[in-house]
Amino acid sequence: MERRALKLRYVGTEFCGWQVQKNGVSVQSVLQDAAEAAFGSRPTVTGCSRTDAGVHAKGFVCVMDGIPESVPTDRLPDALNARLPASVVVTAAAKVDPDFHPRYDAKGKEYRYTVRNRRFPDPFTSDYSVCVPTREPLDADALNALCGQFTGTHDFRSFMASGSDVEDTVRTVYDFSCTRNGDELIFSVSADGFLYNMVRILVGTVLDLNAGVLKRTPGEILSACDRAAAGRTMPAKALTLETVFYDPEPAWEEP
Amino acid sequence: MERRALKLRYVGTEFCGWQVQKNGVSVQSVLQDAAEAAFGSRPTVTGCSRTDAGVHAKGFVCVMDGIPESVPTDRLPDALNARLPASVVVTAAAKVDPDFHPRYDAKGKEYRYTVRNRRFPDPFTSDYSVCVPTREPLDADALNALCGQFTGTHDFRSFMASGSDVEDTVRTVYDFSCTRNGDELIFSVSADGFLYNMVRILVGTVLDLNAGVLKRTPGEILSACDRAAAGRTMPAKALTLETVFYDPEPAWEEP
Repeated sequence: MERRALKLRYVGTEFCGWQVQKNGVSVQSVLQDAAEAAFGSRPTVTGCSRTDAGVHAKGFVCVMDGIPESVPTDRLPDALNARLPASVVVTAAAKVDPDFHPRYDAKGKEYRYTVRNRRFPDPFTSDYSVCVPTREPLDADALNALCGQFTGTHDFRSFMASGSDVEDTVRTVYDFSCTRNGDELIFSVSADGFLYNMVRILVGTVLDLNAGVLKRTPGEILSACDRAAAGRTMPAKALTLETVFYDPEPAWEEP
Repeated sequence: MERRALKLRYVGTEFCGWQVQKNGVSVQSVLQDAAEAAFGSRPTVTGCSRTDAGVHAKGFVCVMDGIPESVPTDRLPDALNARLPASVVVTAAAKVDPDFHPRYDAKGKEYRYTVRNRRFPDPFTSDYSVCVPTREPLDADALNALCGQFTGTHDFRSFMASGSDVEDTVRTVYDFSCTRNGDELIFSVSADGFLYNMVRILVGTVLDLNAGVLKRTPGEILSACDRAAAGRTMPAKALTLETVFYDPEPAWEEP
């Protein structure tokens, strides 16, 4: 069996998320539709994570089984892009070992969360960012210092959506930072793995701590191991999966 | 009568254009709806130009009559934004003389046209740009040199959509330039006025001249005074009205 890996760039606004669901259109299903239209049979597709409804990706990785061996890997992006909606683009493809798994083999991922610190949402970016108006501009250095207190290996149970049934909630956050670019505050989080809603709760917690509405220290929030100890969950639409890390990296071929 | 000027930022994707039309939702009508919901009576709204379906604006100017005098100008943006769809934002307001006319008093306008010179459209910007794939990257300096040959005062009849019934087709283009930013080519055009589809035909002509598919000189195209002499009309969705120039500028109040 030939397994091909694909790198995807997609706008999540109109999808119910990555994963096929009964209600709504998923990225996974439009990819299967495109492959079926191109090659005549419906492939199995496995993703690196289950992004939520509204979440975007610039470097999502999935594998596709069941593509005829006669289709060269470097032709796959063209063949699929011609049949995908404008919101999903295949940017690269790679032939991978049949036991390569985009989720279990990932060494880590980077997400970005974009806040527009302005009075009104910007219509040009409102699908990809959340507007946080403040009297005084938010202090990116202060936010960045708070972010730094959540890096390292911790039990992140306080940063997991309640109702999630993951048992091992220890993760290593390699980097969590905040930089300002005009009225944009870009939060970047890299970790070996993420709990459900973890990035959205991390960003909400840093904003709540900075605003003074959450009166605990980062250490207290982590050690509570209780969702109620952390801050709010930020909206999905400002979250983007930037990069998935593998070692070795698949031999990507860009068309 | 009190006349207020408004500065608007809008994404044109889902509108039939600025102007109220029988079929489709216009920017003008959602603005009237918002004012009616806020102040109880439907105002008259007059715009600086009739942007087409799909065209965007970052600095569109209109005037609104019939707003109660009791509403302070600096409160207008908040009151309207609370009732406008996410795709339209009022960024500033000004009290203007009752004879101020956003179209006839404009000294000029700047439009921008965004080309993504890449193999596949980028889903994050595909509503605001047009993808032009080429074997070799487009040469921004060569494009910019071609743009420069259309500046100045000319009869731009060759750059007016056929079927348009404007008589005086002489316009002064103050600036027409092309700059590259990564895979983005940004065409900027400033003029004292624009004919119907003029920017979209100017950009299409420069691209066609550069590609060698249009075998005339800029001077020949201008002097032909014939739409058939110029290049293709580029799609509307990559066009943005950036700025409208007035002298004196209305006394804008930003909330």
